[in-house]
Parts: sequence; C-alpha cells; structure tokens
Amino acid sequence: MFFASDNWAGAHSSINDRLSRESTRFAAAYGNSELDKAVEARFSELFERDVSVYFVSTGTAANSLALASVARIGGVVFAHSEAHVIEDECGAPDFFSGMRMIPVDGAGGKIDPTNLSRRMAGFPQDALHHGRSAAVTITQATETGTIYTLEEIDAISAIAKANGLPLHMDGARFANALVALKATPAEMTWKRGVDVLSFGGTKNGCWCAEAIVFFNPELATDFGYIRKRSAQLFSKTRFISAQFEAYLEDNLWLDLAGHANAMADRLRVGIGALNSARLAWGTTSNEVFAVLSKTSAEAAKEKGAAFYDWPVAPAMQDAIGEDEVLIRLVTSFATTPDDVDQFLAICKAA
Amino acid sequence: MFFASDNWAGAHSSINDRLSRESTRFAAAYGNSELDKAVEARFSELFERDVSVYFVSTGTAANSLALASVARIGGVVFAHSEAHVIEDECGAPDFFSGMRMIPVDGAGGKIDPTNLSRRMAGFPQDALHHGRSAAVTITQATETGTIYTLEEIDAISAIAKANGLPLHMDGARFANALVALKATPAEMTWKRGVDVLSFGGTKNGCWCAEAIVFFNPELATDFGYIRKRSAQLFSKTRFISAQFEAYLEDNLWLDLAGHANAMADRLRVGIGALNSARLAWGTTSNEVFAVLSKTSAEAAKEKGAAFYDWPVAPAMQDAIGEDEVLIRLVTSFATTPDDVDQFLAICKAA
Amino acid sequence: MFFASDNWAGAHSSINDRLSRESTRFAAAYGNSELDKAVEARFSELFERDVSVYFVSTGTAANSLALASVARIGGVVFAHSEAHVIEDECGAPDFFSGMRMIPVDGAGGKIDPTNLSRRMAGFPQDALHHGRSAAVTITQATETGTIYTLEEIDAISAIAKANGLPLHMDGARFANALVALKATPAEMTWKRGVDVLSFGGTKNGCWCAEAIVFFNPELATDFGYIRKRSAQLFSKTRFISAQFEAYLEDNLWLDLAGHANAMADRLRVGIGALNSARLAWGTTSNEVFAVLSKTSAEAAKEKGAAFYDWPVAPAMQDAIGEDEVLIRLVTSFATTPDDVDQFLAICKAA
Amino acid sequence: MFFASDNWAGAHSSINDRLSRESTRFAAAYGNSELDKAVEARFSELFERDVSVYFVSTGTAANSLALASVARIGGVVFAHSEAHVIEDECGAPDFFSGMRMIPVDGAGGKIDPTNLSRRMAGFPQDALHHGRSAAVTITQATETGTIYTLEEIDAISAIAKANGLPLHMDGARFANALVALKATPAEMTWKRGVDVLSFGGTKNGCWCAEAIVFFNPELATDFGYIRKRSAQLFSKTRFISAQFEAYLEDNLWLDLAGHANAMADRLRVGIGALNSARLAWGTTSNEVFAVLSKTSAEAAKEKGAAFYDWPVAPAMQDAIGEDEVLIRLVTSFATTPDDVDQFLAICKAA
Repeated sequence: MFFASDNWAGAHSSINDRLSRESTRFAAAYGNSELDKAVEARFSELFERDVSVYFVSTGTAANSLALASVARIGGVVFAHSEAHVIEDECGAPDFFSGMRMIPVDGAGGKIDPTNLSRRMAGFPQDALHHGRSAAVTITQATETGTIYTLEEIDAISAIAKANGLPLHMDGARFANALVALKATPAEMTWKRGVDVLSFGGTKNGCWCAEAIVFFNPELATDFGYIRKRSAQLFSKTRFISAQFEAYLEDNLWLDLAGHANAMADRLRVGIGALNSARLAWGTTSNEVFAVLSKTSAEAAKEKGAAFYDWPVAPAMQDAIGEDEVLIRLVTSFATTPDDVDQFLAICKAA
Repeated sequence: MFFASDNWAGAHSSINDRLSRESTRFAAAYGNSELDKAVEARFSELFERDVSVYFVSTGTAANSLALASVARIGGVVFAHSEAHVIEDECGAPDFFSGMRMIPVDGAGGKIDPTNLSRRMAGFPQDALHHGRSAAVTITQATETGTIYTLEEIDAISAIAKANGLPLHMDGARFANALVALKATPAEMTWKRGVDVLSFGGTKNGCWCAEAIVFFNPELATDFGYIRKRSAQLFSKTRFISAQFEAYLEDNLWLDLAGHANAMADRLRVGIGALNSARLAWGTTSNEVFAVLSKTSAEAAKEKGAAFYDWPVAPAMQDAIGEDEVLIRLVTSFATTPDDVDQFLAICKAA
Repeated sequence: MFFASDNWAGAHSSINDRLSRESTRFAAAYGNSELDKAVEARFSELFERDVSVYFVSTGTAANSLALASVARIGGVVFAHSEAHVIEDECGAPDFFSGMRMIPVDGAGGKIDPTNLSRRMAGFPQDALHHGRSAAVTITQATETGTIYTLEEIDAISAIAKANGLPLHMDGARFANALVALKATPAEMTWKRGVDVLSFGGTKNGCWCAEAIVFFNPELATDFGYIRKRSAQLFSKTRFISAQFEAYLEDNLWLDLAGHANAMADRLRVGIGALNSARLAWGTTSNEVFAVLSKTSAEAAKEKGAAFYDWPVAPAMQDAIGEDEVLIRLVTSFATTPDDVDQFLAICKAA
Repeated sequence: MFFASDNWAGAHSSINDRLSRESTRFAAAYGNSELDKAVEARFSELFERDVSVYFVSTGTAANSLALASVARIGGVVFAHSEAHVIEDECGAPDFFSGMRMIPVDGAGGKIDPTNLSRRMAGFPQDALHHGRSAAVTITQATETGTIYTLEEIDAISAIAKANGLPLHMDGARFANALVALKATPAEMTWKRGVDVLSFGGTKNGCWCAEAIVFFNPELATDFGYIRKRSAQLFSKTRFISAQFEAYLEDNLWLDLAGHANAMADRLRVGIGALNSARLAWGTTSNEVFAVLSKTSAEAAKEKGAAFYDWPVAPAMQDAIGEDEVLIRLVTSFATTPDDVDQFLAICKAA
C-alpha cells in the first residue's frame, strides 16, 4: 500500500533486464555510443518529427535546464501557482535560468488562460523595470492529478505564441496524461505548440531516466553546453539510454502508465463508494486526492499504508471537517489491485 | 581492447545484481529510505569517523558542489593546471561555486607546494581587487595517472591549513590511488587534512555513483539545499545507495581497483619491453601514458583498440619523434589480461 | 510642476557646492580617503551605534546587495507584493542574492503581520523542496506613500526574529518617513530590529548617493567582496562621501525631506478641497495618490505637469469612474509651493 | 605629487561646472531626458557611426557587462594575463558574464597574437568538456602603460574574426591611447574590428562617467535588461550624460589626456636623466614604470609623493637590484609640471 508517490516504486523488470544486459558491455562515454544515438532516433520516431534529446539526472534538472535553454535576461516564466517549478524545486529553475517564476492561478491545477493573459500583460517586452515575459510552462499531468485537454493546451499555447513566447511542458507524468487523453505524443506536444518538453520516465518504471526534448532542434544549439556546465552530462549516459530503449519498446511505457491510471481509477471508484471518505476533486491521472475521516487515515497508516497529507488550500477549508484530513494517493506501475483493495477495506472498516 | 577511458566499462555484476534486487522494492524517495541511511552509516565506518555523505549524478557535480560548499564571494580555488575542474568541466565549478579556478603548475600532474605558496601569496585575505584565497583542490589519482604520496598530501594540506583554507580532494579514481598507496581511506583523507572529498564509484564498477563526503559534518549544514537547488537530488536515491552498498561490501571496490591497477601494470611492463613504444612517464594508477610509433598506434586502432591521443605539453615536444604519438591507456575492473596482451602483441608486430 | 518622481529633481545646492569643492582635490581612491572614513564615522554617530557603511550606485544595488549579504542557498525573502524589489528591479535582487522574493499582501502597501506569518510557515528551515525562509524586507516609506509606524515595524520585526531571520529596510525614502514619524534614525531602525538598511539620498537632494548600513558590523564581514564582485565599488568613492557629508550636515537631509513632505501635504489639502479630484488613499510621505477627472489630468499634462498614471488594483476598480484616472504625484526638495498651487488651480479650472 | 593613480584626481572644472548647471534642473529619470538622448547622439557623431551607448557606474561594471552582452554558456574570454578583468575586478567579469577569463601572455602588457591563436586552438567551438572560445578583450592603453598600435589591434582582431569571436576593448584610458596614437576614435575601434568598447571618463577628468559603446547596435538588443538586472541603471542618469557632454565638448577630453601624457613624458625624460633611477620599460601613455633606488623612493614618499610599488615579474627579477624598487607613476589632467619637477628633484637629491 505504497501510495506516497510514484517515485517510491522501484524499476520495472524490463527496464532492469535491459540495464543488466548493458552492464556487461563496453561503449563510448558521454552520449557517444551507438545505443545513445539509436535511442535519440527513437525519440524522433516517437514524436513523428526530428527532435533533439538530452538526458539529465532529475526532473528538477529537466525543468530547470529546459527553462535555461529559453532564458532571457530580465525574463519571467509563467507557471501555475502550484507548479513543481514553483513549489518543489527549491529555486533551481530560477538558479539555472536566471529568470523569475510568476505564479498564475487557475482551477484544478491548470493555468487559466484569462489569468495568464492578464499576468502577461504586466510584463511587456519593454518592461525594463518590471521584467519581460520570456516563457510559459505547463505541467501535464498537473501536480493535482488533473490533465489539460488538447483544447486547453491550445488555449495556453495561443497566448504564448501571440506574445512570441516558447511553451514548455513539464511531463514528469507525461505517459499518464497521454494514456488518459488517448492522444499521440505528437498530438499532446508540438502539434499543440509545445516547444520544449521535460519527458519523465522515472515515475513510470525507470529508476533514473529524464529527457529534455526540443521539437525544434535549432532551439538546442547551445544545449550541450548548458547541460555540461550544469553538471548533468553522465559519463555512462548509455545506462539512461538503455532505460529509455526498454521503456519505449513495445509500448511498455504506455502499458505501465495505463496500469497506474487503472489502479487510480480503482481507488477513485472505491473511495466514491465509501461513507468515511470522498474524492476531494476529480482527477484522471494516477493521482487521487481524497478527504478521509481521520480515523480511517490513521487506521490505514497503522496498517502500513504510505501516503501524504496534503495542504488544504484556503478555498477548500470550509469543505473539510475537523475530523477529516485531505490526502494524496499516487499509484504506479508497481501498484497492485490488492494494494488498492486492502486500502479500501481498511477505510471501510474504520 | 577498450582503453579509451574507465568510463567506457559497464557495471560490475555485483553492482548490477544489487540494483536488480533493489528494483523490486518500494521505498521512501529523496534519500529517506532505510537503505540510504544504512549506506551513509557505512561511509562513516569506512572512514573511521562521523561523516556527512551526499550522492550526486556526476563527477563534475561532485567537484562543483563540493567547491560550492566552501565558497566565498571573491574567492579563488587553487588547482593543478591539468586538473579536471579546470580542463574538463566546462566551467561548472566556477558556475556552481561562483569562484575562479587558479591553475598551479607542478611536475607529474601534482601541485608543487612551492608554486602553491607563491600563487596563494598573490591572493591574501584582504585582496579586494584581486580576489582572496578560498580553497585548495587536489586530484587523487591525478589526471596524468600519478598519485600523491601521503607526505605530498601533507605538504599541500599544511599550506592550506596555514592559510585557513579547506582542502578538497577529487577522488574520481580514489580507489585506484588507495590500493596503490596501500593506505586506508582515513589515512588518505582527513588524517592528511582533507575536508571534503569527491568519492567516485562510476569509473570503478558502478554505472552512476558519485558521493561528496564531508569529514566535518558542520561543513555540510547547508549542503542539502546546495544539492537540491543544483538539481542533483535524485528521487530514487536508493539506487545510488544500492550501488555503493555492493561497491563497499567485502572490499569489492578495492578488488576492482586492484584489478584495474594490475592491468595497468601489465601494460606498463609490456610497453617497457617493446621497441616500438615506451612509457611517457611513470604512473602507478590505472592510467598509462605511452609514446607509440604511429605505425603501432594505427595498427592497434585498426584492430579495434580504443584509446585517445593525448596532447603533448610544450616541455615534452622535443622528446617525441615525428613518427610517434602520445597516447593514454586506461584500464578498469572490466579489462582482461587478454585485452592487454592482444594490444601489446599488435604493437610488437607493427 | 514635476511630480513624476522625486528622482526627476536635480541636486540640492549644498550638495552641489560640496561636490565642487571636492573636485579640486586629490585623494585616495576606492573608499580609502580621510573623507570616506569621516563620513563612515558620521553614520555611526547618526545611528548612535557602530555601523558599517558601504556606498553603491543605485537603490536597486543597495537592495540587491543588502539581500546578497544575508543570502542563504535555497532561501526566500518576504517582501510586500508591491515592493520595489519585486516590482521595479528587473530581478536584480534575485540575481545578486540567489534567492526568490515571496510577495506578501497587506493593506496600504505594508506587509500584514498575519499574512507574513502564514507565508513564512510555508517555508520552514527544513523545507528542502520548497525553500526556506531567509529574510524579510520592508520599505519605509512604502511604494504607495504610506509609512510603517514604529509599532508596525515592531510587529514585522518580532516575526522575523522569532524565526531567526534578518530584517532589511529599503529606505529609498528613509528621510521622508523619519520626518513624518518624528523619530530618530536609531528608533526607526535597529531599535526596532532592523539589521540592514538601504539608506537613500538620491531621491532627497543628492544626485547619486546610496548607502548600505549594517547595524551589526559582523554581518558585513564579507561585504567588501560582495560590493567589489558586484561592480559597485566606485574608484572616486569620495564623491559619494562628499554628497553624504553635505546631506547630513546641519540636518539638511531632514529639512529637505520635511519640505518635500510639506509640499505633499499642500497637495493633499488642496486635492481634498477639489470637486474634480480626491485622494485615492491616505499617505503621509512625499507621495500623493489621487483620483482625477480625466479632464483635469489632461489639462494638467497639457500645461506642463509631469506625473504618472498609476495601475488600478483589482480591489479599487469599482471605486474609480470611467471618466477618472488614478495618478501618482511625488514631491521633492525642489518642489515649490507655486508648483503645487499652479497644479491645483489647473485641476480646479478643468 | 599624487602619482598613485589617475583616479586620485578630482574632476575637471568644466565637468564640475556642467554638473552644477545640471543640478538646478528637473528632467526625466532613467536615461529618458533630452540631455541623455543628445549625449547618446554625440557618441555616434564622435565614432562616425550609429552606436548604442549605455552608462554604468564603474570601469569594472563596463567591462563585466560588456562581456555579459556577448556571453555564451561554456564560453571563455581571452585576455592578457595582466588585464584588469583578470587582475583587478575580483571575478566580476566571470560573475556577470558566466564565462571564464583565460590569460594570454605577451610582452609589454599586450596579447601576443601567436599566443592568442595557440590558446584559442585549445577551445574550439565543439569543446564541450573544455569550454569554447567566446570573446577576446584587449586593454587600450594597457595596464602597463603601453599602447597597441593600430596594426597590433588589427592582428588581434583578425584572429578574433577568423574564429567568429567578438572583440572587446577596455578603454579605461582610451583617451590617453588615442592622443598618443594620433588616431580618431573610429580608427582605433570599429575600423579595427572592435565590437564593444568600455569607454572610460573617470580617470580623465570626470568623477564618475563610464560608458559601454556597441558599434553594432544589434549586439545591444538585450543590453537595457542586462544593465538594469545588474543594478547599473542610474535614476539620475543625466548627471553622467552631463559629464560626458562637457567631456566631449571642444575636445576637452583629448586636451586632458594630452596633458596627462605630456606630464608622463616629462617624468620619462626626467627619470631618464637621473642616476638614481631609470625607466623599467618604455610607455607612451600616462603611466610610467620606473626603477628607483630605495633611498629615492623613501625620500619621495617622505616628502609627500604618492605612488605604488609594483610587483616585479619573475622575468625582471634579475634586472632589479636589492637596493632598488619598481614603482608605478600615473599622471592625470590634474598633474602639474611642478608636481613632476618636485618629484624629480627629490629623486636627484636622494
């Protein structure tokens, strides 16, 4: 019953097998092996377009360096106020890009286009004292478990493009969103106007596999230097490539995300049927936010369930009773139906 | 015959097995699992002292963040002019620490104490315009395959201490040096006055395992923030811990380094006996620098040997003939006696 | 009728005379002249305490370097959401300090202590992912013309101290606030718990004179390096010292600020008596915010009055008619009663 | 007898008069006044070309921001090993530009073209690990009082251009060099291939007037943001403009530099005729380097002469006796023939 985060899971056996095989070989370092090249080509195939791909060590690195690649001095980046780049990266995006993150509100963890336009209007290109708009970043799936529809991405993208700004997507849970939307990688990214993508594999079955994908390779001209100067160029890069090779083979990544989403569905359905719990808001990815009676939550923890309490936003405070608690439950490729059912049974019993 | 670099090798089977086992488990993320704690404790045991240990993704990250941890504004760091932090990290140490790297010359890739003192005298603590001395860093084993004796470390350390400066050791090939010196980890580090160590595992059988070790945990008070802000905190950190667990178990790491050094010895002896080649200078680690006839070098490459030509320093230019080439040969845990013998045979035949 | 900003004024004749005298002399550069030392001592006298004083070129530099002096990696700084460090410095405070500015709301341009506590609670000292509280900054007088009472400073200071955080004051209009409060420099700063002060002279009769004052000189140990590395160490520093010498002599600075405040009072009283205009909110410094009929505003501009329209905050939008405009009027040492009366007459006539 | 540095002088009376006049006026802040625009236009006239001009507070700021304007991540800047950007700016150029300064040797304080080519060859555009060439900077007049001939600038420029690199000139003593070369501003800069110039006025009669001049305004597209973010945008910028207006009027600046150079000539001739002193090396600007008997030096200091001892480079050590000392003497617009003669007389007597 490990629902604390999808990064509590280990690595999928296919990924592990591929790493094992890789471990017995010699190959060129620093991304120059044939495997590295092959996996880079695989990304172009996947996205139906020539892309430039760079591997880095963490999701924070992927976001920070992606933003560094579009940095302008005095620039600001618009992100949802609950975005990982604002809430969970200790200022790394600001450090690497030299830009400020400007929070934009919006329901359901998604940037509201009207708010975005209003915020952006405050940072015109000649705002020497205030700072100028430089980029927009969205998270797909969002930090609150929701997913931008393709039309919603279009709306954000249109504002970015109208202002001449690049659009970045933090895809730490890219696969979960993709499966939920039944879209292709191309449809959810560059066909919507996304310029740079943080493509995450770690939360979905790899143990360490994060990529930055540039849909216009010209944007990446300097990126090799950005990565190396940022201490993110692995010597044995091919071990990242190996993970991605297995990850993308035979749609493994989509199967794993599909499984995680299905386990979340099972949780959603189960919680909906409980008296002692309810969904805090609707989600369609592998994250479930629920209001539990404190009794249930304590019982579950006591019996070994791992999950985090979630901070209650001011707007929600009235909706949550004194004997209740807001929690986040995250499923992964490694979650089993039994895990879910056991958790639900404990809540029911409590 | 992969002698290009020790980072062309894969991962040792024990490391790989340990990773495989780890992949099937759930555990807390971001370094909070029991395994992470256990391995941190293992480092204290290894160094016979309470140490603070932080894992990062690359050797460049280890060096850069170690220097960031002792950074002073306007500070300069003294390093050998051929040091990795100067030659091979694209300015990352400068970027993360905000300090300048000041090259110090010395024979055999080792900082000459007299030169160090002279250089340091130019950067006193009140040198507002010039900059002030802030740290010293040495590489063990050095980039040119040599090894500081314990006495030589003492000499550098004494100068650092006399000037109130911390001493950092870049131990990308720490194990190779340790085995060659027949010293203990403590004897080669804090007993000599080393304050912070980049402890590398990647070149010696891991696929990605670099640690920063603080011998005085008080120096590391802010380091958690430095690492996170530098985008170097892995979510699944325990996969690094797992590698280090296997690496340090039953002296595996020393055995692997001992093997690599022995293979280098075999090369050294073999090359010494050739007519068409000679050692460029004496080394005692797993790196061998040799002057080969161009004919031999080409023959070896043609038959599949991988190695790099090495730039000829001005002082050596007269010693190398027009039909000769200076090359670097690096052995690793994965090098076999056959690899070596085959290479030597090709050279002999050429 | 130059009400656009107090930095549109020139320099007071006493300042100018002192500069003229200084121009004929030779003296040591980089702050090492006797005049520099004397003026530094004058600051200690002024603040009734041993202080460390450093001159820089701009108010943005003063704020940015002051925050750099208390910087912690991963740290965040709490500032009012309309503070100059957030709104008007193009990210310079973030750049020099490496910290993020966190906006805190509060009526009248002043940080609300309850909001501050709430915001700060989100950044505890172990918030590795989110970032940790590192400093609080307040502006006195504020950007909206209001002034913190001594008790209000106490309230902010108490929160900062309870959390172990340094308190910075942006005193770009320090003198205007001081005169309005009838307080001593000591009473408005370190006796309230202020640790570092940006002490501005430029807006109040100097042409370029900004100082950073450390009330605990130990905080300034590294500051000489911070300033030099930030390119803010003037070679002919004594020309800043000379301005401050004249500025502080015989209470000139307080007289000038008193005059500016009085001119603002004259504006406030006059506007209060008009039918076509009203005060937008109460202010007690040299800034006046007024709602004018568009007719009046245009007439004034046509007849040579210089002032800026001010953005209308969402909460005020209903209070301002379609044929009205919100404007800011700033007075200075150089504003004359005639300027004010002429402006009022135009508004009345329109 | 103030020969310590040209920044020990005050300000020329014409500069001072112009500042006095300016002090009585109101005008738009932040470089938007008519005077600011007029002086910017004056620079274009001066350089016979449309240029973009930005004022900053210090020479260190001018150099650092100029280099920031041509910064490339992973880039290195080639400068003479005795250049101000390496020796005297406490790492500010590295901080603002994010690049490393690579020292290049050369006789007489001037970059040797052959050495430059050799150094540059080590940093090709694909040197991911080592870093890539990004800019060249020369100082005119140099820190050792010498001056690049136009042909020598051509030689450096040709190497920069052949490698696609911008050429920066540190013109802290631009006027002294110009007068000595009898060249026009255009001939000494963009006609030689200089792209960005630090144009200094402070050492030659202003009290604070430094400009960055872009000969191709397209290079300056982002520079307004670089300056503001670097805290270098003065609110009362027009006081810098006023200084430059007077400085450039009726060739005042050339007259002042001519005077300083003439005073240096007087020193050179006088020292050449002494028994107890000799010129250390030939200079043609307003700096004179001399070897004095310690007796003479002490006598001069005792009688009020101000000058600095100069570090003796290893190559010169044999040429300087134990009872001798190497000193630097700098003249300025404010140096009088009497100052010089008095100094010479003391040396002669000693």
